[in-house]
Amino acid sequence: MSYDNGNVFARILRGEIPAHKVFEDEATLAFMDVMPESDGHTLVVPKAPAENLFDLSPADLGQLIQATQKVAVAIRTAFQPDGLTLMQFNGPEAGQTVFHIHFHIVPRYAGVGLRSHSRQMADQVLLADHAQRIRAALGKP
Amino acid sequence: MSYDNGNVFARILRGEIPAHKVFEDEATLAFMDVMPESDGHTLVVPKAPAENLFDLSPADLGQLIQATQKVAVAIRTAFQPDGLTLMQFNGPEAGQTVFHIHFHIVPRYAGVGLRSHSRQMADQVLLADHAQRIRAALGKP
Repeated sequence: MSYDNGNVFARILRGEIPAHKVFEDEATLAFMDVMPESDGHTLVVPKAPAENLFDLSPADLGQLIQATQKVAVAIRTAFQPDGLTLMQFNGPEAGQTVFHIHFHIVPRYAGVGLRSHSRQMADQVLLADHAQRIRAALGKP
Repeated sequence: MSYDNGNVFARILRGEIPAHKVFEDEATLAFMDVMPESDGHTLVVPKAPAENLFDLSPADLGQLIQATQKVAVAIRTAFQPDGLTLMQFNGPEAGQTVFHIHFHIVPRYAGVGLRSHSRQMADQVLLADHAQRIRAALGKP
């Protein structure tokens, strides 16, 4: 499958649709997942048009994971989770639903199971607040 | 929690216990998960002693994900899965059981659910064969 410029993350990158952004540098963008599996669930994407792990250059992939680490540190500061999972899905059979490569950062809280992904849109005011907490932890309020 | 030199991946890195290795460079080592969730389930670890995402230097993390990508390409060649998932767990609450940072590469096959992790040790002959297939795909038989 070739890269589809109309995917939702490409549209967010082009500013065509809004997102609760928490971090941006020359190569990457991070924003709140609108259907969070837990409070603080954030996505990190490269600006390069790549569908999956097999399409992204090693250099861009390195920058992507380093941005992911930076944001994860901020999420840890902002939400004080008991654990934190990174996930990256390639192909519909692996659960990929948007075909622009992305890392999920999913905070885990003791005794709290994950909510189902892609079921329910989170409250936008709540997401805006969560994004603000992460930006503050990154020192970029 | 500080890094425990006695963890099983540290012992594999020191050569104290065996593993079905598929890739090694100056900074990373990849080997078969002994309790695979699917055929081809492989782990990639840095040689640097780091418990989790928060303890690994950005440079080492970059090398770790680039090695992970290389091995994922080889797994795709060797096993022709329908999808492929990367997972990285930080903390017991996130499901981390070995406290040396590692990426899981989990191939996904259409219509086949994942096996439970940490339940049953895979057949060693089968794992050796799987490792050989990945090494061959990496051009290192």
